[in-house]
Amino acid sequence: MNAVYLKFHEEYFQTYVDHFNYTNNQKFNLRYLINDEYWDNKEGPLFLYTGNEGDIELFSDNTRFIWDLTYKFKALLIYAEHRYYGKSLPFGPNNSFIKENMIYLTSEHALNDFALLIHYYKEDVMKNENLKVICFGGSYGGMLAAWIRMKFPNLVTGSIAASAPLLYFYQMSPCDTFVKIVSQNFKNESDYCFNNIKKSWEIINNYFKFNDTKKLAIIKNIFEICNISQLNFYDKEIFKSWIQDAFISMTMANYPYPANFLGSMPAWPVKEACKFLNKSYNGYDLISNNTDILLLKALYQAISIYSNYTGSTKCNLINSDTSNDSFNLFKKIFLGKPNLKIGQLFKLNEFQASPALGYNNWLYQSCEEMVMPFCSSKSNINHNLMDSSSMFEPSIWNFTAYSLNCQSAFGIIPRPYWLSLYYAGSKDKNQNISIIASSNIIFSNGLLDPWSGGGIYENDTHKDIISIVIPEGAHHLDLREPNPLDPVSVINARLIEQQYIQKWLATSKNYNS
Amino acid sequence: MNAVYLKFHEEYFQTYVDHFNYTNNQKFNLRYLINDEYWDNKEGPLFLYTGNEGDIELFSDNTRFIWDLTYKFKALLIYAEHRYYGKSLPFGPNNSFIKENMIYLTSEHALNDFALLIHYYKEDVMKNENLKVICFGGSYGGMLAAWIRMKFPNLVTGSIAASAPLLYFYQMSPCDTFVKIVSQNFKNESDYCFNNIKKSWEIINNYFKFNDTKKLAIIKNIFEICNISQLNFYDKEIFKSWIQDAFISMTMANYPYPANFLGSMPAWPVKEACKFLNKSYNGYDLISNNTDILLLKALYQAISIYSNYTGSTKCNLINSDTSNDSFNLFKKIFLGKPNLKIGQLFKLNEFQASPALGYNNWLYQSCEEMVMPFCSSKSNINHNLMDSSSMFEPSIWNFTAYSLNCQSAFGIIPRPYWLSLYYAGSKDKNQNISIIASSNIIFSNGLLDPWSGGGIYENDTHKDIISIVIPEGAHHLDLREPNPLDPVSVINARLIEQQYIQKWLATSKNYNS
Repeated sequence: MNAVYLKFHEEYFQTYVDHFNYTNNQKFNLRYLINDEYWDNKEGPLFLYTGNEGDIELFSDNTRFIWDLTYKFKALLIYAEHRYYGKSLPFGPNNSFIKENMIYLTSEHALNDFALLIHYYKEDVMKNENLKVICFGGSYGGMLAAWIRMKFPNLVTGSIAASAPLLYFYQMSPCDTFVKIVSQNFKNESDYCFNNIKKSWEIINNYFKFNDTKKLAIIKNIFEICNISQLNFYDKEIFKSWIQDAFISMTMANYPYPANFLGSMPAWPVKEACKFLNKSYNGYDLISNNTDILLLKALYQAISIYSNYTGSTKCNLINSDTSNDSFNLFKKIFLGKPNLKIGQLFKLNEFQASPALGYNNWLYQSCEEMVMPFCSSKSNINHNLMDSSSMFEPSIWNFTAYSLNCQSAFGIIPRPYWLSLYYAGSKDKNQNISIIASSNIIFSNGLLDPWSGGGIYENDTHKDIISIVIPEGAHHLDLREPNPLDPVSVINARLIEQQYIQKWLATSKNYNS
Repeated sequence: MNAVYLKFHEEYFQTYVDHFNYTNNQKFNLRYLINDEYWDNKEGPLFLYTGNEGDIELFSDNTRFIWDLTYKFKALLIYAEHRYYGKSLPFGPNNSFIKENMIYLTSEHALNDFALLIHYYKEDVMKNENLKVICFGGSYGGMLAAWIRMKFPNLVTGSIAASAPLLYFYQMSPCDTFVKIVSQNFKNESDYCFNNIKKSWEIINNYFKFNDTKKLAIIKNIFEICNISQLNFYDKEIFKSWIQDAFISMTMANYPYPANFLGSMPAWPVKEACKFLNKSYNGYDLISNNTDILLLKALYQAISIYSNYTGSTKCNLINSDTSNDSFNLFKKIFLGKPNLKIGQLFKLNEFQASPALGYNNWLYQSCEEMVMPFCSSKSNINHNLMDSSSMFEPSIWNFTAYSLNCQSAFGIIPRPYWLSLYYAGSKDKNQNISIIASSNIIFSNGLLDPWSGGGIYENDTHKDIISIVIPEGAHHLDLREPNPLDPVSVINARLIEQQYIQKWLATSKNYNS
């Protein structure tokens, strides 16, 4: 079969701004993309992608395996946008990000939006109470796909949760898990690559020495930074975050073919980046001493695999706002200019990428219930050079500091235990196993993906809780369009996913639990 | 075994006023009653009564079967009070019932309170992630017990939902179901009783003729109304509601032995009431014409079975406030005087009883998602006398009028479809069966109980969704203390409940779903 190409209509659906306060009747338009080309409107199921932290078009473009499934199962396909992202702004583009209007940005409200949308199609549009619904999602969208099956088994028959780090939360996973997996990707290419990156942080720190304008000018020159007339000491952290971000994004998108998900990148971007960070660079030995400038140049070439693969980036924009008020900052962030990469507000331990993603909204959500701990070399904070598991600078994470940041930025005291309580996917600390009080969910994880460290790996075939491991897969590779360069493991993963959907549609009542 | 008598400690638990807005960190004290006398603190489960619309002590006193189970299973027993009732007032006794402070009174918030309480005992007090939890509840508390299992299968192993009318909602059950079952209780005693009550409404209407002070004085005299110097035409509806209320309460508490639940009543109160409403009263024929005053006197004797069984009621208080603003009204209602029965704001079609119950808070909740339609003789509105299924006056129910009432009283536009969407217990309109997307729940219903018309009667033994019918049972008789006068059907019901609890505790993981 040729690859299926679907065209979508953009539709809007009225949902409550506040699902939990019955005196507030305000509604807003939630955007969704819909395709009914292949839909069998008598027997066909509803496939719903539970949108995540960004413009829904980003996700529809990058999860085309669902398009194939839509054709095969004669489904109605909907990509629903998450509130406060893309065009689904409860108070419009100008007022949605005012502090008092942000309070309705929660995963609970988002799930209720999706539940209401399903209900609307089931009861009002199709008038078919037996309509079967399969939910799909990747990453945070994968969490939502799993959670909606857990919380609304009356509406959702089963879910495919791809690369969903349901256990990457406070007291569920060690904080250095993410960084270790990123580092391992680079180490897999060569120890040189890993060590060169590891060495570079100290060099950068040296070049950001206070008032050393000469060295700062070298940095500005090598890294083609355009928006600041002169770099200064205070730009150091944001600069390093930008570099880190590049390595993380390459890892998440470490696909076997060129793709444009977290920015446009070649096949196996980590391998491509490491080509510049090997034993030698441009014929010069990188390993001996006195190669600082050479290494910086090599580093820039390496991150350009992420930041300028298309060659369209003229220069790099570094956001130098060092104000503590990240709430003000994030309002500025949406002003991003098209052919500039934005080194966004990048606090240590808060990773995120791609201008299409609603970065600071995600920060906001991270301060509510979705507290994800990130650290590097936790156990070797004073012996970083000896740590062979992380190529990043050592950093710690502690909840108190995190909480204070959230309070000052958003006025939120995080509730880190809430997720494992509210949703039925948690971790048994004693037995170190995941606890899924649900059924009909596939959890897929690519082991190249740093988020796989928070994935679910238990199976309960009695309840169709199925874990699929894709050793050569990066971030939700399985949801992407099938490609001749796909490894066998992801081809198998897709077959398993298809088989279970078939089983759920054929044998389950829609209210099976 | 002798009946188990438990003494409780009163404890308070800090919970969020607003579980869904992470910028609101305000907390309040939720009351619960706890007993650990028989608790095996290594293996023993937690039994949690999910409190309903009233002071939690009312429910602990009236569900003593759970005390026996607590002894048998060596459980820790907690009765948790529902927010906004009893002593669990988020803004204290003076400010909790101000309009803007009422918005946190929802079943969703209440469930989260209970979930947080379970989590607290599991993680912080007992530090036992495998703690098994069985929830119990009667009536609305039974709905909550079922819903908490549906929404938090990660926290709750199984639930006993007694007399929980999960399907007594808009578009799930015919609106005359409730009234029919009340009427049937009286008809079961005798056709005379049924017909005398049915006839009385017209007589009352006659006595409330506008400006007929003589007739109004007769009513005041016969019914020993004390708070109003003179009854007037506008008191008619509230007066009739008071009478209706008595018949409904007798039906709900139509137990085989004297009890004090919705007020103190003798064994089989319906039978007792009907003794005054038979063929003759005090030796005089009630059936012939010109017996209006005789019938009114008989009627008062009948309702006194409910309103003055103890003889302590000196006279009856009728609330004559006819203002449309029920929100102001309900603030007055809590001023009720101890030895007076309060004829509360009793709009047609809104039934409720007992001063210990938070009546107007329940009205508030009925305007949110819990829209229960009540009507009488729906199909025979113009032919009431011919309707042999209802002993009440004909009345209709329509959502538009209901919604307007809710808007003017509380500023709420009801969301009647929300329950079947949010909770996993619903009704398939086409197949007319209940849909329970869950497991490990027992639904028990006494067929004398008017709420049984909204009960769940499907079984799915594969998932331990068990329905128990108690033909001779009134409102959650099974949860009451075992009594020598209990019918065999309720003895059996309790045995089945005990067996399933035993099974769930022995074989289920606590995260079984």
